[in-house]
Amino acid sequence: MKQNKAMEFESMDATIPVLGAAKILSPMRKANRMSTDGMFVTDNDRVVIDVDPTRIARQIANGKPLAAFEMAGPRERIYFDPKKLRCAMVTCGGLCPGLNDIIRAIVLELYFGYGVSHIAGIRYGLQGFIPEYGHDIMDLNPESVGWIHEKGGTILGSSRGPQPIDAIVDSLERMNIGILFMIGGDGTLKAAIKIADAIMERGLKISVVSIPKTIDNDIHLVSKSFGFDTAVDIATLAVKAAHNEAEGYPNGIGLIKLMGRYSGFIASTVVLSQQDVNYVLIPEVDFDLDGPNGLLVSLEKRLDTRKHAVIVVAEGAGQKFFEGEKSERDESGNIRLKDIGLYLKEKIVNYFKTRQIDISLKFIDPSYIIRSLPANANDRAFCSVLGRDAVHAGMAGKTRLLIGHWNNHFVHIPMSASADERKQVDPDGKLWRSILEATGQGQLKNSII
Amino acid sequence: MKQNKAMEFESMDATIPVLGAAKILSPMRKANRMSTDGMFVTDNDRVVIDVDPTRIARQIANGKPLAAFEMAGPRERIYFDPKKLRCAMVTCGGLCPGLNDIIRAIVLELYFGYGVSHIAGIRYGLQGFIPEYGHDIMDLNPESVGWIHEKGGTILGSSRGPQPIDAIVDSLERMNIGILFMIGGDGTLKAAIKIADAIMERGLKISVVSIPKTIDNDIHLVSKSFGFDTAVDIATLAVKAAHNEAEGYPNGIGLIKLMGRYSGFIASTVVLSQQDVNYVLIPEVDFDLDGPNGLLVSLEKRLDTRKHAVIVVAEGAGQKFFEGEKSERDESGNIRLKDIGLYLKEKIVNYFKTRQIDISLKFIDPSYIIRSLPANANDRAFCSVLGRDAVHAGMAGKTRLLIGHWNNHFVHIPMSASADERKQVDPDGKLWRSILEATGQGQLKNSII
Amino acid sequence: MKQNKAMEFESMDATIPVLGAAKILSPMRKANRMSTDGMFVTDNDRVVIDVDPTRIARQIANGKPLAAFEMAGPRERIYFDPKKLRCAMVTCGGLCPGLNDIIRAIVLELYFGYGVSHIAGIRYGLQGFIPEYGHDIMDLNPESVGWIHEKGGTILGSSRGPQPIDAIVDSLERMNIGILFMIGGDGTLKAAIKIADAIMERGLKISVVSIPKTIDNDIHLVSKSFGFDTAVDIATLAVKAAHNEAEGYPNGIGLIKLMGRYSGFIASTVVLSQQDVNYVLIPEVDFDLDGPNGLLVSLEKRLDTRKHAVIVVAEGAGQKFFEGEKSERDESGNIRLKDIGLYLKEKIVNYFKTRQIDISLKFIDPSYIIRSLPANANDRAFCSVLGRDAVHAGMAGKTRLLIGHWNNHFVHIPMSASADERKQVDPDGKLWRSILEATGQGQLKNSII
Amino acid sequence: MKQNKAMEFESMDATIPVLGAAKILSPMRKANRMSTDGMFVTDNDRVVIDVDPTRIARQIANGKPLAAFEMAGPRERIYFDPKKLRCAMVTCGGLCPGLNDIIRAIVLELYFGYGVSHIAGIRYGLQGFIPEYGHDIMDLNPESVGWIHEKGGTILGSSRGPQPIDAIVDSLERMNIGILFMIGGDGTLKAAIKIADAIMERGLKISVVSIPKTIDNDIHLVSKSFGFDTAVDIATLAVKAAHNEAEGYPNGIGLIKLMGRYSGFIASTVVLSQQDVNYVLIPEVDFDLDGPNGLLVSLEKRLDTRKHAVIVVAEGAGQKFFEGEKSERDESGNIRLKDIGLYLKEKIVNYFKTRQIDISLKFIDPSYIIRSLPANANDRAFCSVLGRDAVHAGMAGKTRLLIGHWNNHFVHIPMSASADERKQVDPDGKLWRSILEATGQGQLKNSII
Repeated sequence: MKQNKAMEFESMDATIPVLGAAKILSPMRKANRMSTDGMFVTDNDRVVIDVDPTRIARQIANGKPLAAFEMAGPRERIYFDPKKLRCAMVTCGGLCPGLNDIIRAIVLELYFGYGVSHIAGIRYGLQGFIPEYGHDIMDLNPESVGWIHEKGGTILGSSRGPQPIDAIVDSLERMNIGILFMIGGDGTLKAAIKIADAIMERGLKISVVSIPKTIDNDIHLVSKSFGFDTAVDIATLAVKAAHNEAEGYPNGIGLIKLMGRYSGFIASTVVLSQQDVNYVLIPEVDFDLDGPNGLLVSLEKRLDTRKHAVIVVAEGAGQKFFEGEKSERDESGNIRLKDIGLYLKEKIVNYFKTRQIDISLKFIDPSYIIRSLPANANDRAFCSVLGRDAVHAGMAGKTRLLIGHWNNHFVHIPMSASADERKQVDPDGKLWRSILEATGQGQLKNSII
Repeated sequence: MKQNKAMEFESMDATIPVLGAAKILSPMRKANRMSTDGMFVTDNDRVVIDVDPTRIARQIANGKPLAAFEMAGPRERIYFDPKKLRCAMVTCGGLCPGLNDIIRAIVLELYFGYGVSHIAGIRYGLQGFIPEYGHDIMDLNPESVGWIHEKGGTILGSSRGPQPIDAIVDSLERMNIGILFMIGGDGTLKAAIKIADAIMERGLKISVVSIPKTIDNDIHLVSKSFGFDTAVDIATLAVKAAHNEAEGYPNGIGLIKLMGRYSGFIASTVVLSQQDVNYVLIPEVDFDLDGPNGLLVSLEKRLDTRKHAVIVVAEGAGQKFFEGEKSERDESGNIRLKDIGLYLKEKIVNYFKTRQIDISLKFIDPSYIIRSLPANANDRAFCSVLGRDAVHAGMAGKTRLLIGHWNNHFVHIPMSASADERKQVDPDGKLWRSILEATGQGQLKNSII
Repeated sequence: MKQNKAMEFESMDATIPVLGAAKILSPMRKANRMSTDGMFVTDNDRVVIDVDPTRIARQIANGKPLAAFEMAGPRERIYFDPKKLRCAMVTCGGLCPGLNDIIRAIVLELYFGYGVSHIAGIRYGLQGFIPEYGHDIMDLNPESVGWIHEKGGTILGSSRGPQPIDAIVDSLERMNIGILFMIGGDGTLKAAIKIADAIMERGLKISVVSIPKTIDNDIHLVSKSFGFDTAVDIATLAVKAAHNEAEGYPNGIGLIKLMGRYSGFIASTVVLSQQDVNYVLIPEVDFDLDGPNGLLVSLEKRLDTRKHAVIVVAEGAGQKFFEGEKSERDESGNIRLKDIGLYLKEKIVNYFKTRQIDISLKFIDPSYIIRSLPANANDRAFCSVLGRDAVHAGMAGKTRLLIGHWNNHFVHIPMSASADERKQVDPDGKLWRSILEATGQGQLKNSII
Repeated sequence: MKQNKAMEFESMDATIPVLGAAKILSPMRKANRMSTDGMFVTDNDRVVIDVDPTRIARQIANGKPLAAFEMAGPRERIYFDPKKLRCAMVTCGGLCPGLNDIIRAIVLELYFGYGVSHIAGIRYGLQGFIPEYGHDIMDLNPESVGWIHEKGGTILGSSRGPQPIDAIVDSLERMNIGILFMIGGDGTLKAAIKIADAIMERGLKISVVSIPKTIDNDIHLVSKSFGFDTAVDIATLAVKAAHNEAEGYPNGIGLIKLMGRYSGFIASTVVLSQQDVNYVLIPEVDFDLDGPNGLLVSLEKRLDTRKHAVIVVAEGAGQKFFEGEKSERDESGNIRLKDIGLYLKEKIVNYFKTRQIDISLKFIDPSYIIRSLPANANDRAFCSVLGRDAVHAGMAGKTRLLIGHWNNHFVHIPMSASADERKQVDPDGKLWRSILEATGQGQLKNSII
């Protein structure tokens, strides 16, 4: 459903750093459980990154190795001694459906899969590492995570914004942590890299394993991120509502703002699912309001013929309209986007007022409902594997990696490969093409014939 | 769940006007259908309005008749000849779950129950009667209403605001309508009374039957209005989301604005259902923001001990804070309420900024999602009976009445009895008492010790 | 939605027994909480049972008092000292949506409303009182019930069947219990009466308060029982599925079996809600399979004209077809009903095989899914009040009573009044009439012309 | 989530047959729509089938071409003239969530994307082609498919079993069909191949495009089939219910039978999602009932320690227990499986009866509910693309192909490549390994130590 522009990966180094040799036999290798060799994954089980046969052939013809990710999964030999190991887990940034499922999967796998019983839940994101905030550590065990998957949000709590890296690593040392599981987005990934670097500098043996969280589904090299399916599921309710409001009144307009700071995946996928939408506006595709091909004229034509219209706008769309205005940043350091939803509302209302046309516009912003409800069944199954694979990677002594999903396989992705890039909807690709077919909206640009 | 202050009805005249004698044998009285006398309702089947045994005894001791509503249901003899009858139906005002279910029930009952096949759907509320708007009539029949119950909103469309009564009655005459079904709120009720009066003045034989629509559940003499259960169902999602957001961050505050212009039934019932709420603010109960017992100080204490809080505010609460500001009216003539949600948000943010306490406040306004989604199963069963009973009343030649639900029975309520009154949450009654128990919020008033 | 045949209650004594005088001032009477007299309920706040004005007038003319229930709610003076009080709670019989909500409401009200902190959860129904079973007591407190409302079933567990009354009362004495909350159906009500009697005989001061549980909604004198709305909600899924299966194949038949041992309320209400059903078969209305007006011939006609049909059958319908067969009883002593669903399936398949007509019949039995999922929002609000009112009644020293809902009020019902009667769908009443209108099924009886 | 054993594809020929050269410029190539070359897909856009870098390198070293699928999507030049084209569509076999979404997507794309307005809906599967059945053709257009996505099942109807190929092709000729869209499973695929062959023999220009339907997700070379996500979503309700029933009684056992004739994907994925399950039994993994490592002994141990257990069994599991019994076939020619659910129920009940241990077993079979409800949001977005891509392939004159999803891309799969193979859960692969971790069930085989 969500595809990227074809990418070439010729120079990518997908090697995952390790803390040391994995010499300990996995406790899974016991009677009546993982009984055959086939059940373990080796580092030679890999998945090519680029699936274009032409580029693959050229790459090999040039004598270069094919870039490929390690497959995730349990290794027969592990690095950490489960009896002595202490782990920590932290969730950072905005809420996303599935956080509690991942927390639960990690705890259950550590506990039942490997026999690790010391698992520290860090409260309120990176704040929890900093003594000044006074947040307690939460003891995680099968009982304390028993029912958390029925609940949205994160039982650990979260927060935005950076904290001093050294203080975090001090805290890890003090707690004698062996594996740190970090669940978060962009900013968390950057922090994770710095933490892993500081750990290496201090010569510590701490694995840092991250599960990328982004309800926007905009992680580079990750074909689908957890929570996205649920977000689409819930967002369709808002579209249905907006459609009913639009049809319910003369010249009714339903305007829905959805998540998507830099990538319009949620907006686009929702529209494919609930094809009652006439306009989708996303950050990746430029559009005009005024002029003969702009949104406003097109909307007027639509109302004239069909009496109602539904518009979905991703929060990061049309930021060009705010150029020149002062920009603010939130605690995470993200630029605080101007509210394109309210801006559009005002522009549309004024346009039709000027044209003396009565309209009935309803603006719906369901973002907080979407991001904080529990995950649906598919996301829960997905989170269950992500969490387990994070444990397997950490137990094997791998570090500075993400658990991702690529070409239909769960894989290890070096943090360095994913950072500083962002997945976006390709305006020439399949997803956007499907949107153009589903909405019939055409190019809302005056410069295009 | 929703109860009113005990009311005395000693002087109430619950007589329903009729167009004339009902002389035609109901087509339901046929083989294999309504086969026994017991299946028909007579005008002597009634329900006392007041259920207080003391007041009843006193009333009878005083030699006064007990005020009682006629029971709704099919009459053995009807007024209109189904073969010649033409009906019209209109939906007015804001959307509400169940509108399509009622439209469908009326159409199916007219068609299959009585053999009436001319049913005109008036588009976009009262506008549809006025030729200048140019809205077409929609032909309603079993096929055109087949699947509409799976859809929220109203297939007829709606609009706000009055239209000239004479033009409406002209239109009814022109279309040769015998029964007009009006589904709408306060304003619609007032229009319905005027229409019925104009009909009588012109000596026409047109029955006006109304089904009261108010998602706020604030209709006087109607214990439950359709759509209310669904509204509560959907609103709990917003409360769950707000609770997860609140728990998810240090000093997290979830603030939800729900419907309720003059009556806090939705806000109150949602809170009973989803008991994660710490403060409920409704129009019927005064509260202060400042001062030692005001909301802000109480909220600070709550955050200090519990780290998070959830607040539900009905849209009509706290309007005293806007006194002195200029008030506007919407197309229906309702006073446009100032947005207490945004006002509270600003007040809370500023209060804690002044106190140098970091908070994380999330504001959720799910109103349009709530009112435009399809009805849940209970509302659909409820609407199914309301619609059928409206048809039975109209066929029997009754007019100027509402179909309501009182003391667990479906009844006929004279329009005159219900108009100009409003049902509200009794601050000394069971519902509000339950809220106080469920939230522990106490009286947020400084004047109370 | 669910109404009974008009009943006369002239001789009913609705007096609730008490353990003694309530002399202690309620802790609710404190600053900033229940601050006005109006917030407490007195025993003079009552609700007439019969709402028929004619019968009421006759009753009074005859000089007889009107039968009326006490209103439920907090009393200003209570019987038990909260500091010393120990309570117990037990859930018996089949699962029903809302059990955990009631458990939670009782615990929260005891704890926060009255300051009672010793609350014993009896495991696995009445078994939990009997030492031989070895079930532990579960300590109930705000933390242990925090999230249970998100979960169906009962955290206490349940079981069927009677246990020795003396052993139960021994156990209550041993645990020094002051209030026993019993949540269960028919059998539990009978046990509760015996327990209350044994308590009285022993001269103990133990209040027995019951909340009637019956997913069938068949409790005499209780207009709606908890879990019923949810059951209807979920059951509509099965009807939708059956309808799609029926429409999906030539001569498709969807056959759904729903709960309803003696009362067809669920089957009937589901059909009102999801009007895709052509036949509803309930215990209260006799029907034939064979003969010119029997189900099979009618079904053949339906398939001939419409190509598909949907049938809903309550489990207790058509038991006459099994007369003469040996009957078994389950652990609760209920007669184990023969499976009318499978019987109908076989009869229908054979009938059409004989007639050489290809059909595609799908049989759906969703009962376990319906009864064990979490309650919906309305049931949760309803359970929240039931639980609190049970606490208020017990704290006031009232005993041998049910908490019920009658004429739209929460009331106290003497156990003796409700036992040995059952609420049923009146074949001449509004609900069944609505079904006949909604399905058009007519009387499936040969004896009726 | 659903992965197969690594497969080698060295000899696979993934070439898609065509009816002739595509010479007509696509109507999509118009102003303001598909404005850039990049928006069209060419036959050189391909996806390698095998993603193992080692096997790829070996393949290339051996001088063999890499097997790769064509990407699906709109071609710049098409074969059929939209103005003259007539299309037909048929749905066959069992119901599956998403059928109506695909019908709708095909109709909307033909109509709005290409301007094709003659679209014949064939009723009740292949029966609809055979005049003797007398089924009418359904005219499909944007209006008739407007709301069908809110409804489960298929508006076309379906049927099982083969029909004479020649009569089908006669019918296509008679109707002058250019593209036949066939949505169905295994049997439909075989019929589609024969139809395509007969078309070729007769020298006709009819494209046959199939969208594989299998709720079991067992199509060879298709990583995910539509409806699967929804099936998992709904099935979790049954697991929750079973878990609540199991926990609700002493020695409670919840036994759920799910779909999966030959492949346990639904059972396995549901269990990953809703991790309350202790045993998963699927066709691909042998298990014993008796003996020291068999299910019954393991279950007794589980009850002894945990008091309850939940078992999920796929319908095709344990068929070895029925060996020697006579087998029947359904109308599709599929062997009618013996009911492993009822068999297990009986075996478990008898085992514990013999051991004089009281249990409470609840058996739940939700299959018809699962397969006939509407698709969830993700499946709907998925179906939307499948339907459009089927249209693009047919318009380009491609034939004898499936639209599938492979390595995260929508692709063209030759029917010949997919037939006669089946995708199954690999007992040594990631999915089953995850199940072993999630359930802790171990190998239920006596032969394994």
